[in-house]
Amino acid sequence: MSALPDLAAVRDAAARIAPHATVTPVLRSAALDALAGAELHFKCENLQRGGAFKFRGACNAVWSLSDEEAARGVVTHSSGNHGNALALAAATRGIAAHVVVPEGAVQAKLDAIVRAGGTLHRCASTQAAREAKCAEVQAQTGAALVHPYADARVMAGQGTIALELLRQAPELDALITPVGGGGLASGVAIAAHGLRPALALFGAEPAGADDAARSLAADRRITSVLPDTVCDGLRALVGEPNLEALRAHRVEVVTVSDAETIAAMRLLWSELKQVVEVSSATVFAAVLKARERFAGRRVGLVLTGGNVDLAALPWSA
Amino acid sequence: MSALPDLAAVRDAAARIAPHATVTPVLRSAALDALAGAELHFKCENLQRGGAFKFRGACNAVWSLSDEEAARGVVTHSSGNHGNALALAAATRGIAAHVVVPEGAVQAKLDAIVRAGGTLHRCASTQAAREAKCAEVQAQTGAALVHPYADARVMAGQGTIALELLRQAPELDALITPVGGGGLASGVAIAAHGLRPALALFGAEPAGADDAARSLAADRRITSVLPDTVCDGLRALVGEPNLEALRAHRVEVVTVSDAETIAAMRLLWSELKQVVEVSSATVFAAVLKARERFAGRRVGLVLTGGNVDLAALPWSA
Repeated sequence: MSALPDLAAVRDAAARIAPHATVTPVLRSAALDALAGAELHFKCENLQRGGAFKFRGACNAVWSLSDEEAARGVVTHSSGNHGNALALAAATRGIAAHVVVPEGAVQAKLDAIVRAGGTLHRCASTQAAREAKCAEVQAQTGAALVHPYADARVMAGQGTIALELLRQAPELDALITPVGGGGLASGVAIAAHGLRPALALFGAEPAGADDAARSLAADRRITSVLPDTVCDGLRALVGEPNLEALRAHRVEVVTVSDAETIAAMRLLWSELKQVVEVSSATVFAAVLKARERFAGRRVGLVLTGGNVDLAALPWSA
Repeated sequence: MSALPDLAAVRDAAARIAPHATVTPVLRSAALDALAGAELHFKCENLQRGGAFKFRGACNAVWSLSDEEAARGVVTHSSGNHGNALALAAATRGIAAHVVVPEGAVQAKLDAIVRAGGTLHRCASTQAAREAKCAEVQAQTGAALVHPYADARVMAGQGTIALELLRQAPELDALITPVGGGGLASGVAIAAHGLRPALALFGAEPAGADDAARSLAADRRITSVLPDTVCDGLRALVGEPNLEALRAHRVEVVTVSDAETIAAMRLLWSELKQVVEVSSATVFAAVLKARERFAGRRVGLVLTGGNVDLAALPWSA
């Protein structure tokens, strides 16, 4: 399932998830426009079901399965928003969701997966242990693997954000999403350029996990980056098909420091009044940092999620 | 300007403020619905211009003035959201806004008033000192007084929230707002009952500033309550015309403890993903507390504002 989806696949995804997903609002702020010197349109996926855009991709994957496949359930390895999103999506179809979680995962996130109806499978925290456990669960149950980003159904689901946003704010000149594994950035690039080939596309990446920026510069996938960033949603290496889509659609990646991201996060809270997680704020940090690339333009920014620990905000650390 | 407005006045206010105010979204949360056992529709005035509903009333007052009156500016005494809202509203008409602020007011709030173009006039922190300073500024400048709540133009402006909300969520059975001075609660009651006489109307009041609840119970205005609550926006005594409207429209006031309000605020942040100030959360606290009065009903809750000090959240104190 790692070939790239096309615009038609994104449109199919939009129809498939429509009964389940939230059409999230686009918010504006005069104060933030003034700070950026640009017209900013914030697509609030923090208000998506499960508190993150991940529900779109997971939901499209779950409803893309045949009845026979679906009956055996779905499986993934993710202790973050994707695991929770897959459990929520599986519940909309009444099927099992197996979520492989590494030791040391945050208890609140595990509780959310269980509340959503998911079954937890614990393993050691290495990538190898996760994949082995995932394969074991697949072998035992026959569940379909739904990878968090290197999956065409997931990319297509995330791409529905661009369809919605371009309907809500048709006059955009540019669009920016965070880049982690690249499921969102690739899906949005495919959908946005499918509709509007002239749109300028950007990604925002933490400087401490800048493998996508390096990979695009080197024109090959760099896998040697050891992520070191507070942006827990953006630590994954960009996937192979995802990188291919970023390259094909000339997505320009802007890297931002954690300090810049935390300052941007605080501004989103105080001015836009939105609870967003730190990874979400990279896009606004990038617009403030690479000012000259956005000045005077109409920019769509995808705020990816709002699942935070309110007792441990990064600016009070 | 303290007679009560009617529905026509609220409709006039809506037309008057339309070029300047934000049509705020109504948000839902499956998790909060499940907690309350009711269908909750949150009217997000934290997303209003200036971060609070107060802009509506201030803007209606400013644009209700004749050109001659407007040329002399407006004046009020408020160190909180109303002062800021009046400065913002005056700026939309290009007129002066004089804001009398007591010693000890929060510097961040004063900065916001100045940024909005307002002129600060400092005085001692007693009610008498504020009123004296306000009268002095009026005498010197001829500015029109815009009282934060005991003013028909202000009440009519706040009432526009009900017009909007009933258009966005026409099937509501009940509606609840916080009660401080009562400008919001009275304006909303007049507008909501003007459109839908069968709607059940509620107010939420901090137990430590429960003068409206006591006044309605005693059928006379009780002015002996010394406010003791974290809800800084709800410490004012309910105004005379405001109380009259609450009584006429049979608004039922539910009192909530500060602990209940802080817990509700935290849920609004974590589940609805909205940055709301503590006074806003009284409405959700009341719905959770007086469960039997809301269970199974479609309830509109007005979230009044989102101006908070992110470095001093009440649950981390």
